[in-house]
Amino acid sequence: MERTGAAAIIIGNEVLTAKVKDENGPHLIQRLRELGIPLRSVETILDDVDAIVDAVARARRRARYVFTSGGIGPTHDDVTVRAVALALGRSVVRLPEMVSALHARAGDTPVTAEGLRLADAPEGAVLLAQPGMWFPVLTVDDIYLLPGVPQLFRLQLETVLARLSGTPVHLVSLFFTLGESALAAVLDRVALDMPHVAIGSYPVFDASLDYRVKVTVEAQERSQVDEAVGRLLGALPTDSLVRRE
Amino acid sequence: MERTGAAAIIIGNEVLTAKVKDENGPHLIQRLRELGIPLRSVETILDDVDAIVDAVARARRRARYVFTSGGIGPTHDDVTVRAVALALGRSVVRLPEMVSALHARAGDTPVTAEGLRLADAPEGAVLLAQPGMWFPVLTVDDIYLLPGVPQLFRLQLETVLARLSGTPVHLVSLFFTLGESALAAVLDRVALDMPHVAIGSYPVFDASLDYRVKVTVEAQERSQVDEAVGRLLGALPTDSLVRRE
Repeated sequence: MERTGAAAIIIGNEVLTAKVKDENGPHLIQRLRELGIPLRSVETILDDVDAIVDAVARARRRARYVFTSGGIGPTHDDVTVRAVALALGRSVVRLPEMVSALHARAGDTPVTAEGLRLADAPEGAVLLAQPGMWFPVLTVDDIYLLPGVPQLFRLQLETVLARLSGTPVHLVSLFFTLGESALAAVLDRVALDMPHVAIGSYPVFDASLDYRVKVTVEAQERSQVDEAVGRLLGALPTDSLVRRE
Repeated sequence: MERTGAAAIIIGNEVLTAKVKDENGPHLIQRLRELGIPLRSVETILDDVDAIVDAVARARRRARYVFTSGGIGPTHDDVTVRAVALALGRSVVRLPEMVSALHARAGDTPVTAEGLRLADAPEGAVLLAQPGMWFPVLTVDDIYLLPGVPQLFRLQLETVLARLSGTPVHLVSLFFTLGESALAAVLDRVALDMPHVAIGSYPVFDASLDYRVKVTVEAQERSQVDEAVGRLLGALPTDSLVRRE
């Protein structure tokens, strides 16, 4: 498989045990969409070295950019740095510039041995300066190790996204009074004939709405979207379309 | 790895492209937690046969119960049944009782060839009657193929959960004025000594709050939670604890 787009790994015992509701996954999904960077997957997993190693290795096979959220603090449950290093077959090294930053931040207070873990990174890591935070973005081989705390995640994500580029997608949504079973043959045909156009079909089961199925048509080329929409509408009864957005 | 607990797979182009925000993952997380069924992972992936086959096979290695959300309608993008069958090494068969149900529901209207796809299932599938819906819960080998539409997902999930049993977890949360670096050595020690107790550490970066780190202590045995909390508090300065919940 071609390694394009992005994949996300949410490292979150606290999410999977319903202690907090994940905000970082939905935020990343929204921002990547706005920039036109396709997202292949979002995996939410436990704070477990083996699970993270496995998820990172798979994400790298599938996507060019990998974002992790969480597990980069100084406590026993912060194992992301070690797991990413293992997934890459690298050592964990202590970065002198981070040791200096930790001492500078602590001032006269001694930095604990555990506090110094914040200076550890997979070998070959690069630090990106983070405006508004003393803690830089930790990145290695197109893997971005972002913090799990939502406001820090958002800040660091913008630093990363400013360096990436995407291709925004053209999208048309069609709302039909027909059910999916009646639409399926036409959708199938156009989807098969036009592999570069993504066609989605989303039924609703709510009698208060004026439609039964929303069909989405999207592609990087506007002309392809227009052609697919023309073919769909040409093959379906005119009065079955409620509206087009 | 022992196959216990649950894993979830959200099949959702529409989620990964930010067209809709997933509600089913968070709802499943909450309900499983309430019942005390541990959740290993939630993967959100594209409506792609290979991706689903891979995710289902991995989920089954890790968890006893697998929940899928989405991709079980009659259109070209509904590939969950086929993918689950492939992951299990089974054929797809057409279930006569579902064909009858589809004809009964359609009344005098003919059922389209595509509509009949709703009667397809992996060989060995079992249908669970769903109160309030003509469409039953489709299940095979502890995999539950739930619909993506949130109100239908919730209805069918309850039918499944009524058949499972869990062990509710005891949880105590401690709020400290110390930072993570100062807490880490004590947390590490107790976490290492008490492997059946899960200890989580969650810093906040908000000066308007009266604490800096929330520590969670949980286990299936209340006495283990009490012992771990006692050890943590005994090893930390008394005035560093803001409150206990």
